[in-house]
Amino acid sequence: MSAATLGILAGGGELPLRVARAARAAGRPVFAVVLAGWGEPGQWAGLPHTVERPGAAGRILARLRAERVRQLVLAGRARRPSVAALRPDAVGMRIVARIGTGFLLGDDGLLRAVARVLEEEGFEVVSPQSVLTGLLPPSGLLAGAPPDDATRADIRRGVAVCRALGAADVGQAAVVQQGLVLGVEAIEGTDALLARCGELRREGGGRGVLVKLAKPGQDRRLDLPAVGPDTVRHAAAVGLAGIAFGAGSTVLLDRERTVAAAESAGLFLLALEPRETDGEENSR
Amino acid sequence: MSAATLGILAGGGELPLRVARAARAAGRPVFAVVLAGWGEPGQWAGLPHTVERPGAAGRILARLRAERVRQLVLAGRARRPSVAALRPDAVGMRIVARIGTGFLLGDDGLLRAVARVLEEEGFEVVSPQSVLTGLLPPSGLLAGAPPDDATRADIRRGVAVCRALGAADVGQAAVVQQGLVLGVEAIEGTDALLARCGELRREGGGRGVLVKLAKPGQDRRLDLPAVGPDTVRHAAAVGLAGIAFGAGSTVLLDRERTVAAAESAGLFLLALEPRETDGEENSR
Repeated sequence: MSAATLGILAGGGELPLRVARAARAAGRPVFAVVLAGWGEPGQWAGLPHTVERPGAAGRILARLRAERVRQLVLAGRARRPSVAALRPDAVGMRIVARIGTGFLLGDDGLLRAVARVLEEEGFEVVSPQSVLTGLLPPSGLLAGAPPDDATRADIRRGVAVCRALGAADVGQAAVVQQGLVLGVEAIEGTDALLARCGELRREGGGRGVLVKLAKPGQDRRLDLPAVGPDTVRHAAAVGLAGIAFGAGSTVLLDRERTVAAAESAGLFLLALEPRETDGEENSR
Repeated sequence: MSAATLGILAGGGELPLRVARAARAAGRPVFAVVLAGWGEPGQWAGLPHTVERPGAAGRILARLRAERVRQLVLAGRARRPSVAALRPDAVGMRIVARIGTGFLLGDDGLLRAVARVLEEEGFEVVSPQSVLTGLLPPSGLLAGAPPDDATRADIRRGVAVCRALGAADVGQAAVVQQGLVLGVEAIEGTDALLARCGELRREGGGRGVLVKLAKPGQDRRLDLPAVGPDTVRHAAAVGLAGIAFGAGSTVLLDRERTVAAAESAGLFLLALEPRETDGEENSR
C-alpha cells in the first residue's frame, strides 16, 4: 500500500515539495497536480507532475486515477477563488453543487468539503505530517530565551484572541504587544499581518509576539497553521520578541533552518502545551 | 446643571468638534482639552480649548477644575500609547498605577479604566450621543437598495465574526465577501481595514459588505463604533455593496452627508435590529 503512488494537490510554498521529496526518499512514487495560480510549477521540474486549473476538477480526478493515485495530500498555500474565477468544468460544477453552502462556511469549511468530495470519489486524504515526519514540534522552548512575564501575558491574550477567531472559522494568528492586539489575521496571510503590525507597534516596553494556533476542531489533515524561516524573518523585521504556537497542531517547516533563523535573530520560538491553548488559562 | 461647562477630552476626527458645537448651539459653554498627537488643534480655533499631552494628567485635571467642568465627554480617535511614550506626569503615574492591569485588558478596558478614574476624581463622564442628538440611527435601511440574500448571508457572517472578536475585546469591524472573511479590524482602524480588503476581493459574484458592531457590554458612553462619510467613501472605493451596523450602538457621523454619500455611490446603509446582532441568527 505504502508503495502506491502518493498524489499531491500542490498549492504555493515549500511544503508540497518537501512532502514529495520525503515520500520519494522513502521509496514511494509521487504525482503532483500543481494548481495553477497557487502552486509554483517551476519548483516541480524533475518530479512527475501536471499543472491544472483548480476548476478543472474532471481533468484532475481523471489524471489522478490514470496515475493510480489512491492516497492524496492537500498541501500548500491557496487563495480561495470565487466560483466565477474558478471556471469549473462539468465535474467541477457538480462538485460546487455538491459542496453547496460549503462556500459560505469559511476557509476551513471549504477545505473540509473538498476533502469529503475527494473521499466520495474514492481517494483517501492523508496529512502532510503523516508523510513528512518531524513537522509537528513537541511543546517547549525551541529557540531563544524564555519570554518574560509581560510577554507571557501577551501570549495568553493572543491565545484567547486566536481561539475566539478560530471558533468563527477565521484566521489563526494574532500579534499582541503590551496587552494590545495590533492585528488579527483573516485571509491576508501571516506575512501581510506582520508587515502591517510593524507600523502599529508601540515604542518601548514589551516587543510583542506573534501567536499562531489551529482552529478548534480543525481537521489536522488539512491546512494546519505553519511557522517557517520566512515567518521568523518577517517577525524579526518588525521587531517582535518571538513566536508562540500550538505544539502538535502547528507545522514547523524546516525545523533546523527555522530554529537557526530564530536564534540568529534573537527571537524565541515557543511551542505551547495543549493546556496553554485550550482556554483554561485565558479567563480574564 | 445643564448650563455648566461641558468638558471635552478630544481625540481626532470630527466627532469632538460636533459635540462642542451642539452643546454651544444649546446654550451651554464648552471647554476642550485637545489631546496632543491625537486631536487636531487647528480645528479648535475660536472655541475655548487647551492642548495637552495625554500623559499630563495632573495639568489636565487641574485645568478642567479651573474651568469649572463637571461633566465630561471622551470623544474622537486615539491610538493607545505605550506608557513610555505617554511620559506620564506625577498625577499621570498615579493614574497608571491605579489602572494597573487595565493596560492589559484591551482598548475598551483601558477606556473604561480612564472613565473610572475620572469619576473617582469627581467628574461625570457622559456620552457624545447625550449631547449630540441623532447620532444613533434607528434600525432599517437608510440608503441604497435592500441587500440580496447572498449579501444578507455575508452580513450574518460578519455579525458572527464581530461578536467573536468583541467578546475578546478586539475590533468592531469585519469585511465579508461571498462568505469569506477578507479582513478583521484590530487597532489599525476601519479605513486601513477597507484599504487592504480592496486587494483581497474576489472578482464576480457578491460585492461584499463592511459590518461594524459595538462590543458586547461596551460602555455606550465611550468609543462606540462610528460610520461616516469617510467610511462610505472608502467602502465604495474598494467596491463593497454596502455597510451594515448595529442600530442604537453605532454612531452615524453627520447622517445627512453619510446617507447622501451612500446614495450617490450606490451603497446600502443598513442599521441592524438588536435581534440581528445578538447572536440568535448566527448559528452555523
